[in-house]
This record gives sequence, structure tokens and C-alpha cells, in this order.
Amino acid sequence: MPRSFVNDAARGNIERDVTPEQRAVEDTLVEKVVQSFDRTPDPRLKQVMVSLVKHLHSFIRDVRLTEAEWGAAIDFLTQAGHITDDVRQEFVLLSDVLGASMQTININNTAYQDATEATVFGPFFVEDSPRVELGGDVAFGAPGEACWVEGSVTDTGGLPVPGARIEVWEADEEGLYDVQYDAGKRSGRGHLYTDTNGDYRFWALTPTPYPIPDDGPVGQMLATVGRSPLRASHLHFMVAHEGWRTLVTHIFPAGDAILWDDSVFGVKQSLIKEFEQQPVGTPTPDGRTIDGTWSRVRFDIVLAPTEA
Amino acid sequence: MPRSFVNDAARGNIERDVTPEQRAVEDTLVEKVVQSFDRTPDPRLKQVMVSLVKHLHSFIRDVRLTEAEWGAAIDFLTQAGHITDDVRQEFVLLSDVLGASMQTININNTAYQDATEATVFGPFFVEDSPRVELGGDVAFGAPGEACWVEGSVTDTGGLPVPGARIEVWEADEEGLYDVQYDAGKRSGRGHLYTDTNGDYRFWALTPTPYPIPDDGPVGQMLATVGRSPLRASHLHFMVAHEGWRTLVTHIFPAGDAILWDDSVFGVKQSLIKEFEQQPVGTPTPDGRTIDGTWSRVRFDIVLAPTEA
Ligand SMILES: [Fe+2]
Ligand SMILES: [Fe+2]
Repeated sequence: MPRSFVNDAARGNIERDVTPEQRAVEDTLVEKVVQSFDRTPDPRLKQVMVSLVKHLHSFIRDVRLTEAEWGAAIDFLTQAGHITDDVRQEFVLLSDVLGASMQTININNTAYQDATEATVFGPFFVEDSPRVELGGDVAFGAPGEACWVEGSVTDTGGLPVPGARIEVWEADEEGLYDVQYDAGKRSGRGHLYTDTNGDYRFWALTPTPYPIPDDGPVGQMLATVGRSPLRASHLHFMVAHEGWRTLVTHIFPAGDAILWDDSVFGVKQSLIKEFEQQPVGTPTPDGRTIDGTWSRVRFDIVLAPTEA
Repeated sequence: MPRSFVNDAARGNIERDVTPEQRAVEDTLVEKVVQSFDRTPDPRLKQVMVSLVKHLHSFIRDVRLTEAEWGAAIDFLTQAGHITDDVRQEFVLLSDVLGASMQTININNTAYQDATEATVFGPFFVEDSPRVELGGDVAFGAPGEACWVEGSVTDTGGLPVPGARIEVWEADEEGLYDVQYDAGKRSGRGHLYTDTNGDYRFWALTPTPYPIPDDGPVGQMLATVGRSPLRASHLHFMVAHEGWRTLVTHIFPAGDAILWDDSVFGVKQSLIKEFEQQPVGTPTPDGRTIDGTWSRVRFDIVLAPTEA
């Protein structure tokens, strides 16, 4: 029986010439697959799997997925699996470019008073970043314009949070993270702790745009659909202290060309900050001698309580 | 803001205490991701990606996916990618146990008059099976009870299809395919062509149940949700001839214990066949000497035209 697909552009749906008998065959299969999870001991896992099955089948049925497209999907996942290693995570990239990472962040970090908003984690965090003292430099020789970053960590009542762990990481001006040069390299990243007033300060690099790794299947997909792999310039933060919700976020320089075309949908208005470029010869806050320009930014961080 | 999840068991849905503001944040992100595919040159690819994004986000939002669950999903896909190689295809297994493979088969092989129904392809097909003559043996030494398989290939009008290529493959009585012993091994598989009357006949093995490979993340998932990895006993067929829709199917022995609990949802009533066990000493159709029992089955195959 010939099938016809009418793409209703206004609603984004496909109207289908599917017979009641065919619809029944497809419905019955969904029901059988759902029932196969009936004996799942963990109710939450059962709930997640049943929802996954229903949405997956709805997708396949809505687009009337062809066998060739199914095969292409299997090949895509296989390639993604094979390029993934300890420092390259293609499945995170895939989740990022489909907005799935950002949606998960949205769901688990709902607005709480004036607490700082969260954004995507990204694939370049590593556990063992070097510790720096307050006012230290996390660049560790990575190339780029020096950037003085300072601010405070408080709760939503404005009370300081001393001893909060601040982890930062960023790409260099070549658009690469340390681990992209060499899995063991550590530069452009570090961690430090707020002082007794809840304040912090450190040297980093002025963030510059970079493409997400685009030599794998995700990059190929982006090219095929006419999307740029570029991320808006950003500096990653993870701020943690017992009793507060761990904050994973970025700050983005105002005026960046990619701000509203970020490949992973990570930009939020509240996270755009003024990075003020300082003319050559401007004295630094700590008397450091710098050849050329440098920049400075203030980022005051507000943590939500764990139970929020 | 605290969120509460009420699992409405009757409807399988989660009612959520999501504020209008939070709902707007989530809606806006979906819209942004959908718009990122606006410039996709291929309209079909755009349609598939937009539908994928909508269903993926609906799933994440419906279950209020936690960050830990997101991380578990990334780990699962990573493990699946790493166990996948030329002869092990964990993503096909995943698609199979979620019924996605069978649903794709259903959609692309709609009922056409009395044409033989299709079922899942499975992960164990290989391109270079040995050719056998009519009446030859595809077991090639694989252990199991000998089984005489015969039938005809016709169109839906009953006219024979001579020269149709019939490809068959099956597990041995240990529950293993040739390639599971050694990627280069070829046994329990072969191909042959129908004669001028559209008839075929060959020796194979009486099918026995086997588990899908369950030493990887898919097997672990099945165990966690209380599902068996066993497949109903079956013999794979792929029947191809120019001008007809290529038929990928199985036949299943009537009375098999796993028939209605098949781990990949592949069983259809019309594909269940009587495999008649023959007592010791029963002469075979071709005068072959067999120690012990053997079985025989008839499978008349009806092909749908390509344009069906
Ligand atoms: Fe980044
Ligand atoms: Fe099989």
C-alpha cells in the first residue's frame, strides 16, 4: 500500500495515510515493549524506560523512519562510540548540540531567588586540575590575553560563603583545551577557594570563541544541517560548598559575535558579563607586569541551598 | 523551589509541579534548538531532526531527567560504543530490545495482500555467506539437529519467482552464531537460489533459543529491569529478487517456550511454522544418512512488489 506524507509546515507534523490495521500493529508493539518493563524492580527506572520507549516509538512513527535512516542512525552511534575515549566524549557533544544537556540543566537547576543560573557542563572538565592560591594564574602558560577575574560567593541572603571551591577551565586563544593537545596536559584550568570574606580573584585568559570538536560524526551532522560548531566565548565555573547546590556555569563576554548562535544553547542573559579590556601599560590590581593589553571582569556568584 | 513528582500509575504519566516561568524556560529552549535546524538543505533530514529534538526534549521533560540519570545515559552509550566492533553491534541490540528495530520493520513493510511478513534483521548477518546448491547443507558442521527446509517463492498472485536469492542464517545448538566463535568462521549460514519452478530446499539446523549477547551494557540493562535476553528459536531468511521488496524475516518453531517472550519482539503469528521432528531412522527426502532424529519444515514465501 502506497503511503503519502504531507508535511504540515505550520504545525511541523506529518499527516499520514496509515490504515487503522497498520496503526493497530504499531500500537500493539509499543504496548508489548512497555509491558516488557513490568517487572522492573526500581520504580523510577521503570518510569524512565517506559517514557523512553513511548517517545522513541512516537518519533519513529511520526517521521515514518525508513530502514536506511535507521541504518544511518546505527552507523552514527557506532562512529560516535568509536571516536569517544578518555578525553573525547562524542555522546556529550551530541547531547549538547541537540540541547538535551541544556534542558537537563534547566530541569535540575530551577530558578531560586537571585541564585546564579547554571549552564552546560561540557566535555572538557577533568578531575585533577591544579590548585592555585587567591590571585594566582590558572593559564599555566596557555596562550591568550590575560584576564583578571574577581568576585564574591554569597548565599541568596547576601551572606558570604568562605571556603567555597571554585573550579575554572577554558580554551586558549587557539580554541583548544589543554587535554586536546595531550591528555596529560593541564593548563587553562585550576581551582581555588574563597577567602574568609567569601571573595576570590585569579588570573585567567580572556575567553575566545572555539568550535566544539567537529572532526567526528557530530561535526559532520552540524555541517550537513548547516549549523556552525562555534561556541560563544566563555569561561567555565564550577562552584561547590557543602550545604549549597553545586553551581556549574559559564560567564560570557558581552559583545561576543557568537552569543546568540551558541552551538550548545548555553547562553543565558544573566551570565553575560562585561570583560573590560585595559590599554597597554594599565597597572594590574596585583602589580603584575604585563606586555600588551589585559582584561578584567567581575562575577559575583550567588549559591542556592542544596534543598532548593 | 521544591519540585514534586506524582506518578500517576494509571496513565503512566508524571504530573509535575512546574511553574509557568519554568515551563517557559524549557519551551523556549526547545524552540531555539528546533530553529537551529532551519537552514538544513535536505527537507527530509530537517523533518527527522526536528521531530527527534521534540521527542527527545519531551522525554527529558516528562521524566524530569536528573543529572545523574543523564550521566548514566552517557556512560551507557559510551560502553555500547566501546563494545561494538565488526561482529558485535550493541546499538542494534539496544534498538532491538527497545522494539525500535521491529517498529521500523513494521513501518517499512506494511501488509500487502498475503505477502510474507517481515521481522527484525538482527546483528548477525554477514555479507559473504557460502553459496550452497539446492538441497545443500548450510550447517557447515555447526552442531545441532538436522532440519530439512523446503518451500516455494511466489508473488501474491501465486506465480513462481525463479532465481530468487535466499539467504539463511541461524545459531547452533550452543546458542551461538559462527561469528561469535571467530569473526572469520562461516557456518550455520548460506545462500541459494530458487529453481525454475520457484522452489527451494536445503538442510539447516532445527532452531533453538539463544540469548542475545548479554555481557555488555544492553545485557546489564535487561538484567536490571528483570527481562530475559532469550530470543525465541528462529531461522533467519532474507529473500531478494529484482522487482520484489526484499523480505527480511524469520520462521519460528511452533511450541517454542520463548515464543511470546521474545527479547526483541520479533515473533508474528504468521511466521510460526510446524517443525516436525522425525523419529530415528526416518528416511530423508534426499536419501541422506542421519544418525538420530531430524526435523522438517515447509515455508512458502510470498513476495510483495517493490512499489508496494
Ligand atoms: Fe567550554
Ligand atoms: Fe537470530
